[in-house]
Amino acid sequence: MKAYELQSTSGLDGLQLVDKPMPVAGPGEVLVRIKAATLNYRDLLILKGGYGSRQKSPVIPLSDGAGVVEALGPGVMGFAVGDRVIGGFFETWQGGPPSQEKFASALGGMADGVLCEYRVFRQDNLTRTPDHLTDEEAASLPCAGVTAWSAVMNFSPAKPGDVVLTQGTGGVSLFALQFAKLAGARVIATSSSDEKIERLKALGADDTINYRTTPKWGMKVRELTNDRGVDLVVEVGGAGTLNESIRATRIGGTMALIGVLAGPPQGEVRLPLIVMQQQNIQGVTVGSSEDLKAMAKAIGLHGMKPVIDQIFPFERAKDAFVRLETGQHFGKVAISFP
Amino acid sequence: MKAYELQSTSGLDGLQLVDKPMPVAGPGEVLVRIKAATLNYRDLLILKGGYGSRQKSPVIPLSDGAGVVEALGPGVMGFAVGDRVIGGFFETWQGGPPSQEKFASALGGMADGVLCEYRVFRQDNLTRTPDHLTDEEAASLPCAGVTAWSAVMNFSPAKPGDVVLTQGTGGVSLFALQFAKLAGARVIATSSSDEKIERLKALGADDTINYRTTPKWGMKVRELTNDRGVDLVVEVGGAGTLNESIRATRIGGTMALIGVLAGPPQGEVRLPLIVMQQQNIQGVTVGSSEDLKAMAKAIGLHGMKPVIDQIFPFERAKDAFVRLETGQHFGKVAISFP
Amino acid sequence: MKAYELQSTSGLDGLQLVDKPMPVAGPGEVLVRIKAATLNYRDLLILKGGYGSRQKSPVIPLSDGAGVVEALGPGVMGFAVGDRVIGGFFETWQGGPPSQEKFASALGGMADGVLCEYRVFRQDNLTRTPDHLTDEEAASLPCAGVTAWSAVMNFSPAKPGDVVLTQGTGGVSLFALQFAKLAGARVIATSSSDEKIERLKALGADDTINYRTTPKWGMKVRELTNDRGVDLVVEVGGAGTLNESIRATRIGGTMALIGVLAGPPQGEVRLPLIVMQQQNIQGVTVGSSEDLKAMAKAIGLHGMKPVIDQIFPFERAKDAFVRLETGQHFGKVAISFP
Amino acid sequence: MKAYELQSTSGLDGLQLVDKPMPVAGPGEVLVRIKAATLNYRDLLILKGGYGSRQKSPVIPLSDGAGVVEALGPGVMGFAVGDRVIGGFFETWQGGPPSQEKFASALGGMADGVLCEYRVFRQDNLTRTPDHLTDEEAASLPCAGVTAWSAVMNFSPAKPGDVVLTQGTGGVSLFALQFAKLAGARVIATSSSDEKIERLKALGADDTINYRTTPKWGMKVRELTNDRGVDLVVEVGGAGTLNESIRATRIGGTMALIGVLAGPPQGEVRLPLIVMQQQNIQGVTVGSSEDLKAMAKAIGLHGMKPVIDQIFPFERAKDAFVRLETGQHFGKVAISFP
Repeated sequence: MKAYELQSTSGLDGLQLVDKPMPVAGPGEVLVRIKAATLNYRDLLILKGGYGSRQKSPVIPLSDGAGVVEALGPGVMGFAVGDRVIGGFFETWQGGPPSQEKFASALGGMADGVLCEYRVFRQDNLTRTPDHLTDEEAASLPCAGVTAWSAVMNFSPAKPGDVVLTQGTGGVSLFALQFAKLAGARVIATSSSDEKIERLKALGADDTINYRTTPKWGMKVRELTNDRGVDLVVEVGGAGTLNESIRATRIGGTMALIGVLAGPPQGEVRLPLIVMQQQNIQGVTVGSSEDLKAMAKAIGLHGMKPVIDQIFPFERAKDAFVRLETGQHFGKVAISFP
Repeated sequence: MKAYELQSTSGLDGLQLVDKPMPVAGPGEVLVRIKAATLNYRDLLILKGGYGSRQKSPVIPLSDGAGVVEALGPGVMGFAVGDRVIGGFFETWQGGPPSQEKFASALGGMADGVLCEYRVFRQDNLTRTPDHLTDEEAASLPCAGVTAWSAVMNFSPAKPGDVVLTQGTGGVSLFALQFAKLAGARVIATSSSDEKIERLKALGADDTINYRTTPKWGMKVRELTNDRGVDLVVEVGGAGTLNESIRATRIGGTMALIGVLAGPPQGEVRLPLIVMQQQNIQGVTVGSSEDLKAMAKAIGLHGMKPVIDQIFPFERAKDAFVRLETGQHFGKVAISFP
Repeated sequence: MKAYELQSTSGLDGLQLVDKPMPVAGPGEVLVRIKAATLNYRDLLILKGGYGSRQKSPVIPLSDGAGVVEALGPGVMGFAVGDRVIGGFFETWQGGPPSQEKFASALGGMADGVLCEYRVFRQDNLTRTPDHLTDEEAASLPCAGVTAWSAVMNFSPAKPGDVVLTQGTGGVSLFALQFAKLAGARVIATSSSDEKIERLKALGADDTINYRTTPKWGMKVRELTNDRGVDLVVEVGGAGTLNESIRATRIGGTMALIGVLAGPPQGEVRLPLIVMQQQNIQGVTVGSSEDLKAMAKAIGLHGMKPVIDQIFPFERAKDAFVRLETGQHFGKVAISFP
Repeated sequence: MKAYELQSTSGLDGLQLVDKPMPVAGPGEVLVRIKAATLNYRDLLILKGGYGSRQKSPVIPLSDGAGVVEALGPGVMGFAVGDRVIGGFFETWQGGPPSQEKFASALGGMADGVLCEYRVFRQDNLTRTPDHLTDEEAASLPCAGVTAWSAVMNFSPAKPGDVVLTQGTGGVSLFALQFAKLAGARVIATSSSDEKIERLKALGADDTINYRTTPKWGMKVRELTNDRGVDLVVEVGGAGTLNESIRATRIGGTMALIGVLAGPPQGEVRLPLIVMQQQNIQGVTVGSSEDLKAMAKAIGLHGMKPVIDQIFPFERAKDAFVRLETGQHFGKVAISFP
């Protein structure tokens, strides 16, 4: 089969299209023909060696893929050949709390990923694709979707009447906006561009703030919430925005912290305010296979559509990385397989 | 009655002994004759105007007092004259999540405190003193005790087999050590002095680290936990120690953040590690009257003794503030009433 | 002022319209002019002595009222004369876990209720009326609304993609249906009448079952859920329906048990199935003032309308009890004040 | 290898000692040489066909075994040949909520058990044996130990100062007593025999009740708790005792329901009391591999010793079943392997 392999962490030059032996499904495993994949910032970082020596090398990149069941290993129940499925981000995080062992099974980094024609998955780690989704849409769920689901639903779950703040128009933020709306919350969304703000409104944002024209947006959020602050911030910006988020969050509220990997290694944080307001900062590292299943159920029930930015064919996979790097995308950058 | 009143926030000079009218218990209220009080760092800060204009002025200082029921207002049930009782830190935080309204009722700051001979409490906000405690010991519970109880038992409750890290020998840290032991956890305690370390061991610490001789104590904690990290850190030191705590905490673990009010207004925090390890930072602002009741039940069952550093008589109350400011105390600094 | 008083528990004959002195708001209290009240089955039971000697006697009946702030006692913050407000079911259950003391403050039973022109409330126990609600709609919230909110949101909170089962068309069941929809869940609703089923669909029920024509509706629910069962049942029927609910509930699912007071004192329950399916039965006794506030926020955000069956004028209050007793109502039976 | 096989569900006659091929560890699997096993009531029921056709047949019985790692399959990390290990009750319940798929992997019933010289386990499902335990003691943990751990620590976790009630002297009850003490709770234990009551006290029971001489022990429990009731009951007796437990439990308290499989299929339950006291009945179906790991950590830290009744050699395995059936045992009945 054809597969892309990251042979050195020197950027796109290290990414080679190679031939690999066809994998075989062992006991409890399922062979999946990949039909689509999507990209995350993490994939750009891995390309450049940003995670250091902890990664497998060479490694097949990309964590997020969807496809069709091609064959079943011995003892597999609950799947049939031809079923449309999505693979989970961590091979061995079925459910329960995170651990070093579970984290060591992340696809496209410490384990081979999905930028290849066929891949074997543990049956625990496969979720049925909701009928109304294309393969590209389905492939947008494992990392960005589950991260947003976990941020919005797992720690301080958004409930009807809550106020949730999302930041910008990255993949996780758009999912978070959509999930918060499904959960009956009011969403305040920030962006640097009025044009993108229109698209956020179309996705359901109740209030929006242009953080370029309103850099002290934390105070604006307090105004919008009768000086109470929001229940939950899905924080993607790192230390710079975190201090505004602390202002924007209510007493006893939560900031779900994601996606600061690309930012500086540390930043100044107003810790005394966190104490005085009994606030909570919760790091979010994607989630488990059971989170993916729960999310897929919600997406299926509501016919929710993930936002896809652009789709590149398998043979132009490198262009997908380039597109992501521009930062101009709105929604997920996807790759379609033959 | 006699009362100390903070008439200006110019330090101890602003603290005056005055005569005040005897308070009267209204419906649902209880008049308590105060027998003992204890001090917290917050009291030093208030003395110096550290909380700004949000405080009542003039104000009777100190949040933590214990005494004896002197009279009952109409409709009070469950208390009798002569009962030994402890007052809660927030007058109107019965239970449930925190809020601006509840926080606005903090004794000795936004509301009058307990450095006076008599005080009226809402019946909701009184807890029976465990029999085995002196009044001074009982008076050590409302702020330092409840803060530690909340840190150890409310957010990511310590359970048998968990590992809890405490820092130093302040009042909250000693309580946290004791509560973690009651809950069946293993405790790793840090201190800057070998002499204090001996006292920590006597209180039940399973392992100890001198953070002066081992400044990278985060790595030492990982060694002591088979590279897994601890489940919970009771973090009292602010940004400086927080980064070591992030190292010391397991994937999915919690840092309960308290007592950084005295520290710098902000500090550099290694946010990406928090994300990659799905860790949780939880600010802790004391707790509710129901937390005080639950804690008192545990203390009563186990005959647990709070650690008292030194007791000053009511007329030498100012000397208690001086003692606290030295930082030489081990346990709570108390004031005994006539 | 005018007030109805239950002078003996001999049914409607015991209910007398009397003149009472105008109440006065003490410290932290608010005087409210009642504009509307609604009825619950509990009110019928109290009328007939169903709760025994634990009730106040004579007592002003009805727990659920809404009105307008008439005057403020000393120290009240956050309310102004003229504000539209709703009173909570328990006078002293601000938040946190339930207790005997909190339960002893139930309006219209152990404490005087709202079937009177004016009533004094603790400020903790008042919630602002959402703008879009009439007073009658607002008055439907304290018992039936909060019970449903608690059942759906407090123990095993419904989340997007979950499946919730509601039973019949009583006040709590209709609220539960509406809240489950706000939370993004799929709702399966049962009823004995095809006509009522049409009204349930209009309220948002995704699937419906006529339990008269399908007495083994538990199996039908399994069919509708791909043999998985529902996540949550809001159980109002007692032992008879509970066994069907056990069938209808998924492994690890929850049955929130309410409103069986009118049923037989006990019933045969299939306990081994509860064990083998790790299911949860959670009794629900209304909820706290903070539950009422959270619910009002959700209702306000979504412009949700409670279902009112019929409105009776204050002077015909007894007819409201009669209407409730017929069991023919769909939604809440209300009383409007002059 | 030697193995016992249940060839028909006709009682002990159906149990045959047979020769089976040596199993081989596949990818992610570990071959374990079994050194000890213990029995549960469930094993007696399976012997007699009590679970019907859902069980594997023929099946190797017993769910609970401990032994030594004999060989590692490909890709196994974290275990070495010679490590002492315990197998989990469900082969595929790593963590997270229960499900039909996870329950379908119960050893000694729907999957082969441990009454055989060698068995292959998924690495996820193995836990290291605490050093201070014998193999027989270690083998007592997977079902009885985890069930008790789950009952005491997972749903309404016992915390310092709580009151926990245990019933009788079965394996689960003794573990529950021990875990509740580790967690800092006060334990009230019931038994039908004064002699057994002495042994319960020796295990740490703070108060005891002979339910033969005090059949209305629910009222006695209220006396012992100042009329408040206990926080948690570990309920093993079915409907008969459940109604006493409802009396014995506080408002808002929990009854963890286990082991009623042997009782009648249903019983009369006082449902209205559950509603009026907002109580919770939680079925407990053992627990996950991660529960076993957490429990082993607690047992290791505290040097806790499970209670073993009697040990039978492998060749006299049938006598172990006979011993269990007498109901005379105190603690676990074990089998030791050559």
